[in-house]
Amino acid sequence: MNEHTPSPASVRRVACIGAGVIGGGWVAHFLARGYQVTAWDPAPEFEAKLRRLVDAAWPALTELGLADGASRDNLVIAATLEDAVADAEFVQESAPEDLALKRDLLARIDAATPAGVVVSSSTSGYGMTEMQVDCPTPQRLVVGHPFNPPYLIPLVEVVGGERTESWAVRWASEFFEVAGKSVITMDREVPGFIANRLQEAIWREALHMVANGEATVEQIDASITEGPGLRWPLLGPCLTFHLAGGEGGMAHMLDHFGPSLKSPWTRLEAPELTPELRDAMVQGCEEAADGRSIAELVADRDRAVIAVMRAVDEVRKGKP
Amino acid sequence: MNEHTPSPASVRRVACIGAGVIGGGWVAHFLARGYQVTAWDPAPEFEAKLRRLVDAAWPALTELGLADGASRDNLVIAATLEDAVADAEFVQESAPEDLALKRDLLARIDAATPAGVVVSSSTSGYGMTEMQVDCPTPQRLVVGHPFNPPYLIPLVEVVGGERTESWAVRWASEFFEVAGKSVITMDREVPGFIANRLQEAIWREALHMVANGEATVEQIDASITEGPGLRWPLLGPCLTFHLAGGEGGMAHMLDHFGPSLKSPWTRLEAPELTPELRDAMVQGCEEAADGRSIAELVADRDRAVIAVMRAVDEVRKGKP
Repeated sequence: MNEHTPSPASVRRVACIGAGVIGGGWVAHFLARGYQVTAWDPAPEFEAKLRRLVDAAWPALTELGLADGASRDNLVIAATLEDAVADAEFVQESAPEDLALKRDLLARIDAATPAGVVVSSSTSGYGMTEMQVDCPTPQRLVVGHPFNPPYLIPLVEVVGGERTESWAVRWASEFFEVAGKSVITMDREVPGFIANRLQEAIWREALHMVANGEATVEQIDASITEGPGLRWPLLGPCLTFHLAGGEGGMAHMLDHFGPSLKSPWTRLEAPELTPELRDAMVQGCEEAADGRSIAELVADRDRAVIAVMRAVDEVRKGKP
Repeated sequence: MNEHTPSPASVRRVACIGAGVIGGGWVAHFLARGYQVTAWDPAPEFEAKLRRLVDAAWPALTELGLADGASRDNLVIAATLEDAVADAEFVQESAPEDLALKRDLLARIDAATPAGVVVSSSTSGYGMTEMQVDCPTPQRLVVGHPFNPPYLIPLVEVVGGERTESWAVRWASEFFEVAGKSVITMDREVPGFIANRLQEAIWREALHMVANGEATVEQIDASITEGPGLRWPLLGPCLTFHLAGGEGGMAHMLDHFGPSLKSPWTRLEAPELTPELRDAMVQGCEEAADGRSIAELVADRDRAVIAVMRAVDEVRKGKP
């Protein structure tokens, strides 16, 4: 952080390096939030593809509500990486998942970006520690991991590497909040961060099932869209199971279904359900419930499930 | 199947054995769909708790639309298990997850239920093969695995055991469809069926993360509700990743992100991504896409994510 570090709320100029599905999604998001966006990608024909992606996203972003001054005209295509970041107040890198490529690219970005400006990587799973090794000023590099599409899904996971300074993590978290995202700030590097670890566990179990002929792609998708997928937009996996315990909540659930952790219900071995883990889950759910009774949570869940089913149903029927 | 087996569409009288969160949820569902429901539970005071559960669910069910003749007055409390099933045309068992208990209970139900009537178990993960061992007429016993709450979440997974006859699996699948559920009929027993294997993989990874101090309950839940949980009501995990591949779809996704299957992003080891598995995933997604282009799927996903976010937001704000 130095005298050139803008306050997160004052940022106007954002650079997006890499303009594929994720990078292009970030471009669309920042444009909709009213930023000036400079984009660069090594692919020679990237501009047409990027503009197609932004155009495809724009109706949804308009429907959600554009920020004052938001316009697709605020997109500038840079001829070089160095041009793209030259006067950026924030940089988001979204290159393919290739560690050597990311190391090299982040070092180039770091060398060309004004001092004091935070540089964030969209990596799905690398730690910043392993990506920042060749950077001249690694202290301002963070991971800012989005979800597809970045212009709609609110979540961004923010975490630094060993050589990242804590101000940069705080700055990035604050900036993403200002820019309309929901931020989870992690205090340590974990491969895959949080959401991707959970999502990857589902995905690998699904691949095993298809590989073994235990289920088809169609059955796997239907088992989520017609089942637990309808609960997860309101309640995550922990609060969902808090309600599975009936009036006894998570405590009853763990005491009652705890033995199923030993069942071969997935290829993933469960941890030992120690008293400490049990209590951490129970206490975490009580904090998350924030004084709401099980009955109140059930009523909220029911209203949300109905609303979500109706919303999805209208999309399936092709209503605008 | 015999001359006493009703056609699935003609069933009027349903017995629910076990009246906890799941059994009570089934009672509420069948009442709302206009059935006569007889309930029995070994707990001495179960009636008051059951009626509370049904009363709590009724506003949601009314909002969704009750079937002609649906009424909470159609609930009869039986004094014994044998009374409950004596003239049932379908029986749903929802006892605690305890194999010895289920074996004993299903044998009692089987002995007391009119011949030719299908008996279904709500078990979360036992196979019918291991549960039906003491049944006098095991050929009519099936698993009909619901999701909490059974009166709202459409999914039911139907699968028989080794001694189940195929007509019973077909009959149960047809009956659940008539009764307003979304049915996945499995042609083989897999521990945890499909949705619970996927859900359990997430749950175990979440428990590991809390046990290791890698994430809190609050972060885990937020990572789903603000992230992938918003995509899953419309697109399951397979079609979600079909879109992660951009215009190249699942084929590009697997060819591009395939190496991440070797990454330590979850404690669950991935299967080998053989050409056969790759092709099965690609073909499954193409079938599921059913002629819709990636651009059309993206447009549908975007509309669904916006609608789901709005629906959840209104519930969070306490709007009715």
